Amino acid sequence: MRNHLFFLSTDSHASPFDMNIALDAGFDVALPYVCVKEEQVEGLTHDIIFSRGPKGTKHSAIFVGGSDMELVEKIVKRAGDSMFDPFTVSIFSDPKGAYTTAAALVAKTGKAVGGLSGKKIVIFGGTGPVGQVAAALCSKENADTTIVTSRDKKAGEEAAVRISSVYGVSIKGAAAKTGEERLALIQEADIAIATVKAGIQILSLNELGSVKNPLIVADVNAVPPSGFGGLAPGDDMKQIAPCVKGIGALCIGFIKYKVEVDIFESMLENKITANFKTAYESAKTLA
Amino acid sequence: MRNHLFFLSTDSHASPFDMNIALDAGFDVALPYVCVKEEQVEGLTHDIIFSRGPKGTKHSAIFVGGSDMELVEKIVKRAGDSMFDPFTVSIFSDPKGAYTTAAALVAKTGKAVGGLSGKKIVIFGGTGPVGQVAAALCSKENADTTIVTSRDKKAGEEAAVRISSVYGVSIKGAAAKTGEERLALIQEADIAIATVKAGIQILSLNELGSVKNPLIVADVNAVPPSGFGGLAPGDDMKQIAPCVKGIGALCIGFIKYKVEVDIFESMLENKITANFKTAYESAKTLA
Amino acid sequence: MRNHLFFLSTDSHASPFDMNIALDAGFDVALPYVCVKEEQVEGLTHDIIFSRGPKGTKHSAIFVGGSDMELVEKIVKRAGDSMFDPFTVSIFSDPKGAYTTAAALVAKTGKAVGGLSGKKIVIFGGTGPVGQVAAALCSKENADTTIVTSRDKKAGEEAAVRISSVYGVSIKGAAAKTGEERLALIQEADIAIATVKAGIQILSLNELGSVKNPLIVADVNAVPPSGFGGLAPGDDMKQIAPCVKGIGALCIGFIKYKVEVDIFESMLENKITANFKTAYESAKTLA
Repeated sequence: MRNHLFFLSTDSHASPFDMNIALDAGFDVALPYVCVKEEQVEGLTHDIIFSRGPKGTKHSAIFVGGSDMELVEKIVKRAGDSMFDPFTVSIFSDPKGAYTTAAALVAKTGKAVGGLSGKKIVIFGGTGPVGQVAAALCSKENADTTIVTSRDKKAGEEAAVRISSVYGVSIKGAAAKTGEERLALIQEADIAIATVKAGIQILSLNELGSVKNPLIVADVNAVPPSGFGGLAPGDDMKQIAPCVKGIGALCIGFIKYKVEVDIFESMLENKITANFKTAYESAKTLA
Repeated sequence: MRNHLFFLSTDSHASPFDMNIALDAGFDVALPYVCVKEEQVEGLTHDIIFSRGPKGTKHSAIFVGGSDMELVEKIVKRAGDSMFDPFTVSIFSDPKGAYTTAAALVAKTGKAVGGLSGKKIVIFGGTGPVGQVAAALCSKENADTTIVTSRDKKAGEEAAVRISSVYGVSIKGAAAKTGEERLALIQEADIAIATVKAGIQILSLNELGSVKNPLIVADVNAVPPSGFGGLAPGDDMKQIAPCVKGIGALCIGFIKYKVEVDIFESMLENKITANFKTAYESAKTLA
Repeated sequence: MRNHLFFLSTDSHASPFDMNIALDAGFDVALPYVCVKEEQVEGLTHDIIFSRGPKGTKHSAIFVGGSDMELVEKIVKRAGDSMFDPFTVSIFSDPKGAYTTAAALVAKTGKAVGGLSGKKIVIFGGTGPVGQVAAALCSKENADTTIVTSRDKKAGEEAAVRISSVYGVSIKGAAAKTGEERLALIQEADIAIATVKAGIQILSLNELGSVKNPLIVADVNAVPPSGFGGLAPGDDMKQIAPCVKGIGALCIGFIKYKVEVDIFESMLENKITANFKTAYESAKTLA
């Protein structure tokens, strides 16, 4: 029996990135279902699970992607709720790569500092998809985690409360608009992470030069300029300032890629429900 | 040459159910074309038939699905009208499974009563897609066929006239809102069929207990509650009341599945135009 | 590694014609991306090129089709601009078959007259996609090229200026509404081409009978009536009037088909960017 992947996306296109990886990982067929709405999921799921017999469920799987992370989670829940033994299939969610990227980012930085427990971590752009999942993973590892928005303090704190509630963790919120304010936030931090949009520099090389404590910076944006001055996409713990080592976006991206391959391959072996937690477990062994 | 299926749907998604069955039946590639409009069909058909040479037409086929049964029929007609020898390909229509489901339902109940000719059949929810095709198939077998709506008598009779005209048959229309009215309608009936929406019970186990003549009940809805009290989805001519035997939705669904596989496999062998009649011929041998 | 084709279309469906040819030419998987907007192309391209490693770029390719020729060109440009060594993949554009059709048409007529340089060519319907690309190819071969619209002279001349500018060529514009006016335009012409919509006859057999100079007529419309009276779709330099030989739409269509196969096969061998120029080079060897 051939392996069929049903690729559900909240967007109008099924990401070619995930399509390529799924097919290369061993799916024989990948079928795009775009602009998926929550109310369509039960019907789609029943169609998937009831059409190949109980044995066929090992050869069918669901991927859920797209840029609407909340809708992705609703789709995953609906799909899961629509299944029952033995009519269950694997589900893997990774909204616009945010789960695998956050997992790779946190696993890599965690390895770099010898474990995240008790470490002070500041995540710039932490209210976006990658940032909030990274914050949740850091906090679950008992790191002292702060997300930073470029808006005002209230927005940062509200986001922290919301993220803490969604993921069952405890993170802090802050705001910073200037390099000076950002520099103040990373005093005594062990790790500074940038998950901001392309085109924004969080700290210049000059500002990083003034850092006095050992700091690791990591960026997930591969398009110049880097979120941290002097950091190149391929850098892997490169010394970029007297006290600062950097991890670039391609270094993290390569781990993210391996994690995604690993999960798609696992779906072909066993029935799994994979999300950011699964991705993080995988990333810790692959980083 | 690989076998290509062009999956045309009136809906925004190509049913994963039909996709799985088509691919498992032997199509190498299945390509989704969604939200298909009637005026697009000639262009799509010409594209399909003219791009692989006359020999290629044996390896290309069209499936037409989706919940808009009338549009499905228009698409089938347009596609057929756009072909000419030797540039013809197989076409299989099955709007939301209604044709194969109705075929399985009628073939199974027909077998249970030793042939439908002269039998009295009452179809609750007979104005929906499955119900009306089932009614047409019953009437073609010379059964005394009545469709029943939950609206008023006029609506039931008008639907019966319309269905009789569309399929060239002669069926009667009725209405029933209460269990008592429904019970009255099945007096002296040989078969009572439920093709209503999930969640509606046509007759309770208590009401079925009052039936005095031998009656077979059949339901196409697998989601509890059953259309007939005491009927389980997997039941195959199970005694559920002193005079009543029941056929459940999974029993019918399994025949429907085999019919659909049979037709997709036939499309790979010969050029066919398959609709509810083809499905019924197949179902009679598979039920 | 399997060969993946990402089929980007400006329309709501990915042409089954191009799908069939791409798959028959050797692509293992062809994935449809429909209603593609210019601003989505960078993201799609990055997804395509970054997900299989540098080696994978030899096994991924982009096809751009659809009826909006201008948008097709914008998509091609954006996709190309989003790539850099070694992360580049093949791109083949053929908006609704216009490039391969125009290439086949011009190569075939050019061969028929022993080279287009210095020849007088009149293209009826020359403002449409096939017509304007054919005009550009003729002019690049130093033919004296005139496009003819059925609207007024101003419209024809403006179109000629626009096309000359877009393709860097020099063509003339004219208008003709009656058979008499069209007959006047082809006096002393070597080639008359019809790229008009189905249902329009440019010159009747009677009018062609009055032609005194040797003339070749060619038509790309296979649906009767032919653009030239007496011309059948399969005609290959058939004498249809004392001074007139004709090339029919199927004759041109067969070359177009071979050109498209040739380009898809080339994409599997080498990284290429194929458009109407590539198609014309291929057509000259295949016509």
